[in-house]
Formats: sequence, C-alpha cells, structure tokens
Amino acid sequence: MIDLIAVGSLGLDTLETPFERVERVLGGSAAYFALAAKLYSDVGIVAVVGDDFPEAHVDLLERKGVDLSGLQRQSGETFFWSGRYHYDLNTRDTLETHLGVFAQFQPTLPEAYRRVSYVFLANILPTLQIAVQEQVADPRLVVLDSMNLWIETQKPELTRAMGRADIVTINDEEARQYAGAHSLRAAARAIMDLGPSAVIVKKGEHGAILVSDQGLFGAPALLLEDVRDPTGAGDSFAGGFLGYLAETGDTSFAGIKRAMVHGTACASFTVEALGVKRLATVTRDEVEARYRQFFEFTSFDAVAVSTGAS
Amino acid sequence: MIDLIAVGSLGLDTLETPFERVERVLGGSAAYFALAAKLYSDVGIVAVVGDDFPEAHVDLLERKGVDLSGLQRQSGETFFWSGRYHYDLNTRDTLETHLGVFAQFQPTLPEAYRRVSYVFLANILPTLQIAVQEQVADPRLVVLDSMNLWIETQKPELTRAMGRADIVTINDEEARQYAGAHSLRAAARAIMDLGPSAVIVKKGEHGAILVSDQGLFGAPALLLEDVRDPTGAGDSFAGGFLGYLAETGDTSFAGIKRAMVHGTACASFTVEALGVKRLATVTRDEVEARYRQFFEFTSFDAVAVSTGAS
Repeated sequence: MIDLIAVGSLGLDTLETPFERVERVLGGSAAYFALAAKLYSDVGIVAVVGDDFPEAHVDLLERKGVDLSGLQRQSGETFFWSGRYHYDLNTRDTLETHLGVFAQFQPTLPEAYRRVSYVFLANILPTLQIAVQEQVADPRLVVLDSMNLWIETQKPELTRAMGRADIVTINDEEARQYAGAHSLRAAARAIMDLGPSAVIVKKGEHGAILVSDQGLFGAPALLLEDVRDPTGAGDSFAGGFLGYLAETGDTSFAGIKRAMVHGTACASFTVEALGVKRLATVTRDEVEARYRQFFEFTSFDAVAVSTGAS
Repeated sequence: MIDLIAVGSLGLDTLETPFERVERVLGGSAAYFALAAKLYSDVGIVAVVGDDFPEAHVDLLERKGVDLSGLQRQSGETFFWSGRYHYDLNTRDTLETHLGVFAQFQPTLPEAYRRVSYVFLANILPTLQIAVQEQVADPRLVVLDSMNLWIETQKPELTRAMGRADIVTINDEEARQYAGAHSLRAAARAIMDLGPSAVIVKKGEHGAILVSDQGLFGAPALLLEDVRDPTGAGDSFAGGFLGYLAETGDTSFAGIKRAMVHGTACASFTVEALGVKRLATVTRDEVEARYRQFFEFTSFDAVAVSTGAS
C-alpha cells in the first residue's frame, strides 16, 4: 500500500557542465524524489508527461518499483529544461524551458493516494500545491518545497500553501527573500509563524539546516571526491528524508535529524553523475555506508579524555 | 612564558555594513587572533603600527593580557582598511587600503619568541611568512593563512611557505584557485602534497572543513540570531583553534577537531558586532557554552532507539 506520494514534475533535461553534456535525459523533481525515496519505502508520483516522453524513462521508474498510477499522459510536449552550469557548479544559466503539457498540469490524485500519510509537494505552482493539500484527507506529514519564482509572482498563494504544510524546504537565499530578513533563523521563524513546525534551509554544497520548534540541526554536505552535476540534489534530499520517515514512522526530533542525514546521503550520490544516472543505481547498503560516513564526518568527542597527549 | 605567537597585521578599520558604520577601530589579523587565543592561552603578537595608532587600542590588548614585546612602532601611518559589506554580508567591496608602515614590515622576533611551540602566520606576504619560519627554532605546530592576492602574485613563495607549515587555513574559493581543482578535497590534497598534514577550508557563514591525513571533519557555522560583521571571523577562528591547542597540547586528530569547534565558537562571537567589540568582551564561560551549543547543533543519534514512535 502506497503511504508516500510526491506531486511534481517529470521532464526531459539537457544538462551541460564544464565536464560533460547529456541530452533529454530523465529529469524533474518527481523522478529524483521517487528514486531516492524508493530506497526506503514504497512511493507513488503524480506528474504529467507528453507523448514524446521515452518509454525507457517510464520503464526505469517501473523497474525501480515506483508506483505510476498517478502518472498522466497527455498529447503534446513533455516539460523540457536545458541548463548550463558554471565552473563552480553552484550557479547555472537556464538556456531553454518549454513547459509543454506541464503548463496545464492538474494534479488529480488516484483514490488510493488520498489516504496517504506522507506527502511531498515538489516545487510547482502554489495553487496546485493547495489543490493537492485539499485532496489528501488526513496526512501525517506534508513537506513543501518552493522557489524564488513563486515568491516573486505568487506570494499570497505560496503563503497559504506553506501555512498548510508541516515542513517547508527552501534555499537559503529564497528563505531570506521570502521573509525579507538576512538572518536565516529569523527567516525560518517567519515561515514557521505561518504554521509549519519546521523549516529545512537548503544550502547546496554547504548542506542543510533544520530550524524546528524542538531545536536546530546543522547537516554539512559530505566532502565528495568529485561533484559532477548538482541537478536534483534538493529533490533527492527530500526523497531520502521522507522515504526514511515513511519507513520508520518516527517523526520525533531525533527521527527527523536522522532523516536529514539520509537525505544528505541520497543527495551525495545524485551529484556524483549527470542526471539520475548514479541515483538510479545506488543501493540501500551504499546509502547506509554513506550515512555512517556522515556520522564520522561530523562527530567529535566533545570532552577530552586526556590532555597533554599528542 | 609565551608558547604561542601570531605574526600579522594590526590596523585601523573603517567598517560599513547595511546596518552600521564605525571608523578607525582596532583591526588586523593579529588583533582578532590574539583576543580569541587569549581566552585559552598566553599569546604574543608580532606586528607593526605607525604613530597614529591610538594608545587606547594598545591599552585594550595589554589589558587583555596580550604580550606586546614583539610590537614594532614606526614613524608613519598605521595600516588602514575600509570596506563596505553587501546586504548578504558574504561579499564586500574594499573602499580604501593604505599599507602605511605595514609596507616595510620586517617581522623580527624577540629572542623569547624564537623557542615557541605554536605559531600562527596570518595572511601576510609569503616571503615574510618564510622569514618567520626561519626564526622559530623548533615549533611544534605552524598554522599558515593566505589569500587570493598571494596566489596571484607570489605563488612560488606561497608554495614554499605552505610547504613548511603544518596546517594551512584557506577559503574555499582560494583553495580551488590555488590548486586549479574544483573538488575541495582534491584542492586540499594538492596543498597537503607540499608538506602540511592538514588543510582547514574556511567557508564563512557555512563553517569550515578539515582535510587531514587522519580523516575529514565538517564543522558547520552556528546558526546565529544575527550576524553584524564578518570581519575577523577567520582570524578569530584561528585564535580559538590554536589557543585551545596551545592550552591542551593535544594535537591528536580528536584534539584538532575539538580545537576547530573552539575556533568556530570564537568566530561566532566576533561576527555578532562590528570589529572586535564583541570578541573583546566575551568570557571563557561564554565560549564554553557555545561549544556545547555547537555539540547540540551537530549531534544526532545515528541509530534509532525505537522506530514507530512519534
């Protein structure tokens, strides 16, 4: 039984980094989310594709066990995005965006999805996020992601959508932009004042910070040998995060911290290759190993056992 | 007996942030370093000031117990810097720099300083860093800081100075620039190949990362209520770091990790007010409290005690 769903985009991405270029590969928030979440838990996605969407991409998701009963197929072009990353991989230029059938996307949830406990509202139009919120009867945890475009063009709707979410994930600059505050702590609190019990501030290669009414948690990104493509890192993070929570049912502060580390582990695989290439082959054991690596990376004996030793 | 020294600048800073402006306040790497280090250990500084340097600034350092037997006073203008921070406080424009007597700085160490164990070579001309290295007989730990200017104009000299240091501290972008590598891990390793056993990559509001031949350690910056002025954060970090190491003598991997957290704690006070204002009043108890706060901020129970609990 599906107890975790993501509503977002499926798309075709043409990605260009200083090192490589790939064309029309599987992309979209729902794809990255689902591939990460499925390492932990059954997951279904609600998204739309056009008739140019390659069967191979559908096959990959099916083979991975992602539930596609909420996948809509419409006549027209699939959402297409092409972008070029700068040398530092932290900034990018969008070269082309064709919304295609995504422009008319109406997220209608299959009957079975309306009783799920865990919901990820990926970065789509806030009014569509609200439409989904109205269809899920009694969710336990709704995580909402957003971006600068909606802050600039749909702030009242975004505010309403955020107000109905339990956890908001947002980039550091966007959190500051939304709240008009420089302090990330103040910005997160401004969002929590709308209703959410926590905000996860995403900082790309610098990791993520949890601000919740139970405390703070800073999770640096792992120091990888090589980063190839940051596309989808945030959605993979969300997938590992919610997948782990859906698996364990432990939404305590301690559970949420562990979930953030699982999210960090998933995202660290995503960025190692272009598109979903690495994420699609990673195993649960590999993620667990990286979870332990994160623990090593951040832990220290706060109290010296002996001093004077060299 | 002084067992820790810093060689760097003392200066007058005019600082402008989106919130405040102060004129000709005490600045310079040696000032920030010494005020932080003195929370842990006796410390002496080697620096030069002109005859316009206010006695009040000297008094402050003396009152704090900083050893000034290596302070040179010369006829002329003290090093002056004025800068304006942008709204995000992560970027700044230099408005004016007058080197003054600093242009002719020759770091001559008092006899007693030549037998110290712990040395901080703040961000000065690499040839001067080498001159200091040649004066200290048998140091236990030499930490060297540098910047883009020397990478661009004095790379061979900087390479030589780095090669004789035990730990190099450097910004993320500068590490990439020096090594010509995007991966911070590869960049750090390129520096370690010169001789140092560790590199601390400084990332400003995103914290710092230790890359050493004994392992990695990621220390996120604390999430402060409010950041007022990042000036001197890196030197305060170095001061807390080396001050703690000089106090404990524990240069093991575990000790170095704890020292990084002490450095992070010191830097977190520095940025709370303009210039050295906050750092000059912070107490050891306050630093210890923030050390514990850091521990809370980054620790998590890696293994769930029970799942299914909410």
